[in-house]
Amino acid sequence: MRILILGAGGMIGRKLAAALAQDGLGGQPVDEMVLADIVAPAPVALAGGGPVNCLAVDLGADGTAEALVAAKPDVIFHLAAIVSFEAEQNLEKGYRINLDGSRALCDAIRDQHATDPAYCPRFVFASSLAVFGPPFPDPVPDSWTPTPATSYGTQKLMIEALVNDFSRRGILDGISLRLPTICVRPGAPNAAASGFFSGIIREPLTGQEADLPVPRTVRHWFASPRAAVGFMCHAAALDTGQLGPQRALNLPGLSCSVGEQIDALERVAGAAVVARIKERPNPDIARIVDGWPAAYAPERALALGFRAEISFDEIIEIFIADELDGQIA
Amino acid sequence: MRILILGAGGMIGRKLAAALAQDGLGGQPVDEMVLADIVAPAPVALAGGGPVNCLAVDLGADGTAEALVAAKPDVIFHLAAIVSFEAEQNLEKGYRINLDGSRALCDAIRDQHATDPAYCPRFVFASSLAVFGPPFPDPVPDSWTPTPATSYGTQKLMIEALVNDFSRRGILDGISLRLPTICVRPGAPNAAASGFFSGIIREPLTGQEADLPVPRTVRHWFASPRAAVGFMCHAAALDTGQLGPQRALNLPGLSCSVGEQIDALERVAGAAVVARIKERPNPDIARIVDGWPAAYAPERALALGFRAEISFDEIIEIFIADELDGQIA
Repeated sequence: MRILILGAGGMIGRKLAAALAQDGLGGQPVDEMVLADIVAPAPVALAGGGPVNCLAVDLGADGTAEALVAAKPDVIFHLAAIVSFEAEQNLEKGYRINLDGSRALCDAIRDQHATDPAYCPRFVFASSLAVFGPPFPDPVPDSWTPTPATSYGTQKLMIEALVNDFSRRGILDGISLRLPTICVRPGAPNAAASGFFSGIIREPLTGQEADLPVPRTVRHWFASPRAAVGFMCHAAALDTGQLGPQRALNLPGLSCSVGEQIDALERVAGAAVVARIKERPNPDIARIVDGWPAAYAPERALALGFRAEISFDEIIEIFIADELDGQIA
Repeated sequence: MRILILGAGGMIGRKLAAALAQDGLGGQPVDEMVLADIVAPAPVALAGGGPVNCLAVDLGADGTAEALVAAKPDVIFHLAAIVSFEAEQNLEKGYRINLDGSRALCDAIRDQHATDPAYCPRFVFASSLAVFGPPFPDPVPDSWTPTPATSYGTQKLMIEALVNDFSRRGILDGISLRLPTICVRPGAPNAAASGFFSGIIREPLTGQEADLPVPRTVRHWFASPRAAVGFMCHAAALDTGQLGPQRALNLPGLSCSVGEQIDALERVAGAAVVARIKERPNPDIARIVDGWPAAYAPERALALGFRAEISFDEIIEIFIADELDGQIA
């Protein structure tokens, strides 16, 4: 099996590449892998010893998509994107990468399919729950109509529509995954308004102070990086005949308040770790986060076997195991 | 007021140009009009005597959109499209015109807005109820999530999302109109599966036989060409502050069965005219039409003042008045 991962240098892309290299996909080994991102991703070693190509590519540049698809990968994971904040700041760049780049990828598959009608790769598209915008019911049902509140969400929604159409036409076998907020994100704090949801767990566990900018009553929808990799692998091996014409899925997560996050941290790591969280209200962040849904009711994805964590303790324990080698500061 | 109509050579575009030239828009006269289509549209005479430019343009060609928007029209009606059947047959052409051409138009507005932030034209986009695909509830409520069953519907849905996003950002002031099936269409029969809905009225009224390929129980959603022009003008003058983030509207129509169409024809034109309808079942057409919704519940558009006909008699009388100069064969 040949696999292409676009956005393989990102947080989920790296973990996905490592998992596929070691475990294969749906019981089959991976024979060949191409890892592409704007800077060349780190290589992984396939269990069976096959070749892994690590490429630095600009998905927005002419010819990139054609070159990536020319080898006819069996499964394509498309995780490459300009993130929400940057797509909102830089309108042209967001549309060029998130819309045009994704479109170029689908068109390159279309062209391969035109010359070889048997070619119809599994196409796993990392979409986002940002396709939804306010007002929201609580929880948001699968039947709720997406009306994005950002250009990023708009671009994801447009590509979901394209993936549905190309799947209907038999050009590709697509599935679009509307991911929850991934928590606990490893690495340095970032500028995202959602950053504190990870920061209040990650920083205290590594001996540092963390700002809490919102009230403890704020509630949000989470899954771990390990769950995100699980979603991708499950989507790649799924019987898509079950999906019908709508191939975009709201994914499971855990609805958890900030107060419940902190209580879980105290259970897992103790009061001294929790004491490193400092309440420093930030009305700008509080206002942004207040516009986000607290919970979804992802019945379709649950029925299809997608699973996230069911306690925030588990999300913290995954972070400690996968990122801190089991060690708390 | 400067107006640009793209697709001004089509059936609705011609009637819209004539109505605007004579009546103006929202109580204001039209000072200048540009009529563009793949072949140069016929000119109209503005009531105030201003200039009318009739242009043959290919919206899919580089530079077309920029040239059309350079004069900063106050109102842009975008009716140009590859129709459903052709977009399904010719995948590349449908996406090139319906998606890329429409996108180029929005990007040209974005670029004008970037150099002159006060420029934010009213943008009336002719979308379609083809954004919806089966299964349908009856009637289809405004809250129903679009899942197109055609590439045409997909392309319309993608541009609706772009119009929402660019409106949110203040680049344009958009409104997307999901038009019902327009009936009675003037002119020659066409290859569309929906063609008989007009044919069984139009042909008998002009002394010709018409095939009825489906059972009389088939029910569909109609508005007249005159109503379609009314929708466009109403949308162009509407207070869009009422729309919120979702600027696409399911438009009103009349839910009418084929049997009710025929009964109306008999009331308006007599039994001799109705006798020209010949039942010639066509299972292919019956199967396609069977997948279409029978009725919508367009509460938002009704609350915003959009109005269609409320009897099929009226739809027939409009055809006789507007297309046949009041004469029945």
